Amino acid sequence: MNMFLTISFFIFSLLSLSHASVVDFCVADYNAPNGPAGYSCKTPKKVTADDFVFHGLATSGNTTNIIKAAVTPAFDAQFPGVNGLGISIARLDLAGGGVIPLHTHPGASEILVVVQGTICAGFVSSDNVVYLETLYKGDVMVFPQGLLHFQINSGGSNALAFVSFSSANPGLQILDFALFKSDFPTELITQTTFIDAVVVKKLKGVLGGSG
Amino acid sequence: MNMFLTISFFIFSLLSLSHASVVDFCVADYNAPNGPAGYSCKTPKKVTADDFVFHGLATSGNTTNIIKAAVTPAFDAQFPGVNGLGISIARLDLAGGGVIPLHTHPGASEILVVVQGTICAGFVSSDNVVYLETLYKGDVMVFPQGLLHFQINSGGSNALAFVSFSSANPGLQILDFALFKSDFPTELITQTTFIDAVVVKKLKGVLGGSG
Amino acid sequence: MNMFLTISFFIFSLLSLSHASVVDFCVADYNAPNGPAGYSCKTPKKVTADDFVFHGLATSGNTTNIIKAAVTPAFDAQFPGVNGLGISIARLDLAGGGVIPLHTHPGASEILVVVQGTICAGFVSSDNVVYLETLYKGDVMVFPQGLLHFQINSGGSNALAFVSFSSANPGLQILDFALFKSDFPTELITQTTFIDAVVVKKLKGVLGGSG
Amino acid sequence: MNMFLTISFFIFSLLSLSHASVVDFCVADYNAPNGPAGYSCKTPKKVTADDFVFHGLATSGNTTNIIKAAVTPAFDAQFPGVNGLGISIARLDLAGGGVIPLHTHPGASEILVVVQGTICAGFVSSDNVVYLETLYKGDVMVFPQGLLHFQINSGGSNALAFVSFSSANPGLQILDFALFKSDFPTELITQTTFIDAVVVKKLKGVLGGSG
Amino acid sequence: MNMFLTISFFIFSLLSLSHASVVDFCVADYNAPNGPAGYSCKTPKKVTADDFVFHGLATSGNTTNIIKAAVTPAFDAQFPGVNGLGISIARLDLAGGGVIPLHTHPGASEILVVVQGTICAGFVSSDNVVYLETLYKGDVMVFPQGLLHFQINSGGSNALAFVSFSSANPGLQILDFALFKSDFPTELITQTTFIDAVVVKKLKGVLGGSG
Amino acid sequence: MNMFLTISFFIFSLLSLSHASVVDFCVADYNAPNGPAGYSCKTPKKVTADDFVFHGLATSGNTTNIIKAAVTPAFDAQFPGVNGLGISIARLDLAGGGVIPLHTHPGASEILVVVQGTICAGFVSSDNVVYLETLYKGDVMVFPQGLLHFQINSGGSNALAFVSFSSANPGLQILDFALFKSDFPTELITQTTFIDAVVVKKLKGVLGGSG
Repeated sequence: MNMFLTISFFIFSLLSLSHASVVDFCVADYNAPNGPAGYSCKTPKKVTADDFVFHGLATSGNTTNIIKAAVTPAFDAQFPGVNGLGISIARLDLAGGGVIPLHTHPGASEILVVVQGTICAGFVSSDNVVYLETLYKGDVMVFPQGLLHFQINSGGSNALAFVSFSSANPGLQILDFALFKSDFPTELITQTTFIDAVVVKKLKGVLGGSG
Repeated sequence: MNMFLTISFFIFSLLSLSHASVVDFCVADYNAPNGPAGYSCKTPKKVTADDFVFHGLATSGNTTNIIKAAVTPAFDAQFPGVNGLGISIARLDLAGGGVIPLHTHPGASEILVVVQGTICAGFVSSDNVVYLETLYKGDVMVFPQGLLHFQINSGGSNALAFVSFSSANPGLQILDFALFKSDFPTELITQTTFIDAVVVKKLKGVLGGSG
Repeated sequence: MNMFLTISFFIFSLLSLSHASVVDFCVADYNAPNGPAGYSCKTPKKVTADDFVFHGLATSGNTTNIIKAAVTPAFDAQFPGVNGLGISIARLDLAGGGVIPLHTHPGASEILVVVQGTICAGFVSSDNVVYLETLYKGDVMVFPQGLLHFQINSGGSNALAFVSFSSANPGLQILDFALFKSDFPTELITQTTFIDAVVVKKLKGVLGGSG
Repeated sequence: MNMFLTISFFIFSLLSLSHASVVDFCVADYNAPNGPAGYSCKTPKKVTADDFVFHGLATSGNTTNIIKAAVTPAFDAQFPGVNGLGISIARLDLAGGGVIPLHTHPGASEILVVVQGTICAGFVSSDNVVYLETLYKGDVMVFPQGLLHFQINSGGSNALAFVSFSSANPGLQILDFALFKSDFPTELITQTTFIDAVVVKKLKGVLGGSG
Repeated sequence: MNMFLTISFFIFSLLSLSHASVVDFCVADYNAPNGPAGYSCKTPKKVTADDFVFHGLATSGNTTNIIKAAVTPAFDAQFPGVNGLGISIARLDLAGGGVIPLHTHPGASEILVVVQGTICAGFVSSDNVVYLETLYKGDVMVFPQGLLHFQINSGGSNALAFVSFSSANPGLQILDFALFKSDFPTELITQTTFIDAVVVKKLKGVLGGSG
Repeated sequence: MNMFLTISFFIFSLLSLSHASVVDFCVADYNAPNGPAGYSCKTPKKVTADDFVFHGLATSGNTTNIIKAAVTPAFDAQFPGVNGLGISIARLDLAGGGVIPLHTHPGASEILVVVQGTICAGFVSSDNVVYLETLYKGDVMVFPQGLLHFQINSGGSNALAFVSFSSANPGLQILDFALFKSDFPTELITQTTFIDAVVVKKLKGVLGGSG
């Protein structure tokens, strides 16, 4: 077919969009209701390239804390462009001796790539098998959804990794926070774990929990 | 790592939630729009433990009716906590001679457990094979999504079962109601089933349908 | 059970719908927010049979254009009844010599049935294998999600086909429009394809793009 | 970038496919096990264009039968190319007076387009609302998953429609067959529907069921 | 339409099943490979009603143990009929003082109904809010996927509950087993939780772990 | 509850795994059939930590080619641990002037993080809007599923990025390869794009296609 018909034009009634629909993406509109599938969509006409870009992972999180680590997320609550797309990302910074404590992501599997440093990482399966590995720069590890896992800086210097998730909203349950930073009653923790009340109370004291 | 640094504290910038997001659940807000994935989410700050509990299945449904049975549902429309979680439940009470008439759940598979009594249950597959079983206390039966099935009290005394569904909104299409309690025109029913018009009209009379 | 109890009636508390829920479908309400799962649902009481019917594919699209073809869609943006149901449809009209240019559907697989005429169709896989076939009246072809494909009228007379999609919102990316009808900068197109700037500019001229 | 470097070549290690993977499609291999997601995949090297084409809908099904209609399916069991793609199609032929009896598709929503003739179609929702419409050539109707529906030829001449489904394996439960063509015991049918035993037995006689 | 044409018969070529397909269900074949969607399907001809029934929840699990409780599952690994249906169930027996220790289900949400006794149950969300409730006979509670939760018998006598899951394969990670019954190295547990090595070793001694 | 009953032990019949099931993950068994959901699962007993780690992204791909770039994937075909987990990753190396040509991922959305250098990236939506951005170290960009996108090294030195996908098997269709490296007949390309036959043939010559 000859395309040099300069005077021709065509009407391609491909999409008679009587109603502005969300076709390829659904940038989060934080001012509208959200539902099980995510946030409502920003009007397409108001969407710009900036909605698909996130700058917040460009600098290290603050690792001057007790765990000498920081996690900086770009989930749907921070990064409107990922809403409904089934993907998100976060940055892990671990200073020397730094630790990302034992935690789970209820809503997603995680894939980690080491950008700098050395990281000892692992997860535990439902049948209590522990999978541990030391990861060097460029190494990748995957953590199946919902399983307890951790990362530790096992090198001398700062470590940096990026972790991606199979959901825009993976969730994050940090074991210690759930137990000792919350107001989960000590008596119930003792009954439902093998941890003595004295220990529980001490840890609640450290982490600022109550109960 | 020693956790007894009582004077220490840490900043864990794990979730810089600039926008209240729904992370783990989405308790139904009945006052907001709903969509294909379910109801909009109640603001997390307003969520309480009561949202995750449902008391309505604690007592028997009223079985003094023609089928001597009752089904009491806890679907997303009744039980806001299940919204978007892919699960729901209902209570089946069958008095002596009671029957849950032939029906389908368009949106979910069903799993039943007998708590009391004896229940004859069954379903029909797409290729017209009938799967029947008599279920005693503690027995479990699964009914694949969308297939016609029923339960009958085949013991002498009251029977009680709980049924769970693989959706917060399984739907329920009762064959007789669809045909004879509705205003489905008799002529069309006759044409599209093998049921004579006289029979159809009689049944419509019993069930209160029209057409 | 004897159904000739004409004076009997029953109360079947099957669905104590305290809150109008969407059980089987979710007809699009274009005036409410939409989200990743689709549009919000029209109030069930306002739903009529007309919501589930679409008349717009009854007549040929206008094929007096440069490609001598037209596509008339019934996606969720046009046909509210398909919202959230995972299905949609469109009509393809190809006059003699007509062509549906190379395109993809990011969101769905497509199935085509030829109603009239002869259509040469094909798609390319991720590993660059081309699958071509000449389709006659009644023939069906399936195009996997996201892959480049096309249809050409290879007979002498008008061709007509209906195409269905595995989503209410399949999306449509027409290669030429994406490159030459948009404002995609020529320099970038040249860098990211093997197409010379002169050719790009010529095509932009034909299609009305800029950059 | 100049692409006219005829002596150049490049190595694009995009997909180091050490193991033949299924990337875009999974043509059914009927000789291997199948699972909840569909059939196993045919080895990609053995896949041809013919796997994506189905000719079986090109001619009318045989309508010289009691319902004066025929449905010819192209589901995954017949059409290997649709396996795992979430879509399938069938052809409906209705001679004058023809009827597709009341039925459901447990696994998919359905979209119908009338190619010839006039069809009266309808479905019943979970809350017993009947949605009826007369469809003319080119009209489209959608039937939500799992709900009872039917089609009747309401014109004088042959009617033809194509129906697509939101699954490669929609299933099909024909009400009359499930009850009267099967060996569903008459006593149980009577108990679980409002249909008298005499009527049931008569219908079983017509349809060839037992019990 | 008159159905009393006793000499008539019809040919309904609805499903030309050239290849035995799994249409409505996929009963697990434990002898064939399994994949991400579940087990391979048993040949439909070999499927019986017994495949859809499970008797193992009919009697109490053995609660003469340290937690005075037992969980008896009917997941896809035990109950072949649920394979691929998105649902499963288990029985919880809690003797007086019994406890189901803190655990998660990585793959599913859970819904619990109390059949007998009184149960104190709760879960912790990703943002460390604890949701606690005392449940009486007939009460229902839902536990969102992946979150830590527990049940305790808070009455004097035996308690019994049934729990259903939104997956045929919900998984189960018991916190104490993951840490103290496994060979998770003590040093790593200490680093990644706020639990002192002495405490860890003691608990490993009790539970039989190593490392 | 006192956990210091050293002589006690318990039987926790939590998972009576009569049949080795895949509970949390499904490491790919390349020797077994695969299906629409992915590869069959390796026997759990044979799974090791190494299955969840991938070392292949540790070094730069070979960028001494015409596009001065390389993509090294860790999809399910290379990295067995991601099978069925809904996530995968790849490494992008762009030397000075390097380009990842225009391409799509039919099966997944993509999220990119720049580790080193400066990258100009963009995608085109279904309605031909172009979203372009210059990304610096630490910047993240998301590319919705199925849409044409590209990356260009817009800095002077080597650029490195990691890209993650919302599927273990995202697919990859490179526009130029699909058209000019394949045996897609020139005549058909001309008819279905706005590219003149002379140009097509020249590009086929460069890329090694035929037809």
